Amino acid sequence: MPVSQAPKSHVGARGGIPDATVSRLPMYHRSLVALSNRGTILVSSEELADAAGVSSAKLRKDLSFLGSYGTRGVGYEVEFLLYQIARALGLTQEWSVVIVGVGNLGHALAGYPGFASRGFKVVGLFDADPALIGEEVTVAGRAVVVRDVKELAQTVRSTGASIGVIATPEASAQQVCNSLVAHGVTSILNFATVLLEVPEGVHVRRVDLATELQILAFHEQRKSQMVLAQETA
Amino acid sequence: MPVSQAPKSHVGARGGIPDATVSRLPMYHRSLVALSNRGTILVSSEELADAAGVSSAKLRKDLSFLGSYGTRGVGYEVEFLLYQIARALGLTQEWSVVIVGVGNLGHALAGYPGFASRGFKVVGLFDADPALIGEEVTVAGRAVVVRDVKELAQTVRSTGASIGVIATPEASAQQVCNSLVAHGVTSILNFATVLLEVPEGVHVRRVDLATELQILAFHEQRKSQMVLAQETA
Repeated sequence: MPVSQAPKSHVGARGGIPDATVSRLPMYHRSLVALSNRGTILVSSEELADAAGVSSAKLRKDLSFLGSYGTRGVGYEVEFLLYQIARALGLTQEWSVVIVGVGNLGHALAGYPGFASRGFKVVGLFDADPALIGEEVTVAGRAVVVRDVKELAQTVRSTGASIGVIATPEASAQQVCNSLVAHGVTSILNFATVLLEVPEGVHVRRVDLATELQILAFHEQRKSQMVLAQETA
Repeated sequence: MPVSQAPKSHVGARGGIPDATVSRLPMYHRSLVALSNRGTILVSSEELADAAGVSSAKLRKDLSFLGSYGTRGVGYEVEFLLYQIARALGLTQEWSVVIVGVGNLGHALAGYPGFASRGFKVVGLFDADPALIGEEVTVAGRAVVVRDVKELAQTVRSTGASIGVIATPEASAQQVCNSLVAHGVTSILNFATVLLEVPEGVHVRRVDLATELQILAFHEQRKSQMVLAQETA
């Protein structure tokens, strides 16, 4: 599970919206975009909950934090709810993102189709490897040149990038993080298998791909235990 | 947020352990491995909670589901707790994993350092692109040859792989998923930006990288609103 490293965010709430609700908003947003694309005007809480894979009680509670209560027997207006969620998530503005580490993972992230469509613009790619520096990578139809990580400061300042993605090996992650923070980045998405230390006010989310497999392995094991229990019963 | 697509798993519990607790176990496991490597014998709930970035109340509650209560004033025995969590997660056995889609993301996943060290063995790499089929990819020191996705059935059967990773473009994801499930895979980690339909009993976890950025954007927006409020106050 990607975890927010700031301990406070697990227990507290920000701006009245609990972190668990925030983490489900992108899912609702995605489901609403699909409904909107199909021309749907109104959606019931059951339908929307189903599309997002949560219970309708949880959905209604989550949306109530946005001040959105729907109309009994009618449901929610798709376009208005979409706007409310987009505004809460900050999707009504464009965010500049820099990616540090342009190995296989960095390349995959730079080419990830979901970024541009959701308001994230990759404004810089950086690596320390001379073999990669100078390479042109196609990002959302534009060519972005991989630059020396030493030029990070300049790009962060000139673009106002506030989000940094770390896709470097473990050994360099903390140093890259320090450099990002020193130059004004306040949100970090960390793919390196290391816990980063950051000053207060900086948000880190860590994506640990092996954790996802461990959670699946837990369910696999339960399944095989159930089969075993049935066979020996 | 990676979401388990099975609606039931959001509300119910499996084997007495709530899904939210399961999703935190890998984090505790990682923290305990670090403590064990440093030779630590005992750890207090506060120390362990701190290392894992949760409150100690939450940690104690989570561990109580494993039947682990620690000793008041003493804490938890590191090695025993490690064993209990590893057993609960199914890490005491090796899991065979196949990866379908060997573009940049598939390459990155195949080379991900955390898989092998946590009991996951990549036994097959598959793609439909003739330019990729036949390529040798180094996975945890072994050479694994990328095979035609048509040969998937054979590998899944001969290796008993139960976990499949989908790193294909959106358009092929459902078809690949059907094929994995048809040949015996019961857990799927999905990186494609599409919701997969699976029969009951199959677990899907979806990793949506843009969702992680959206959650960071939410916090970024709150920060800028706070600065604005301070400036105008």
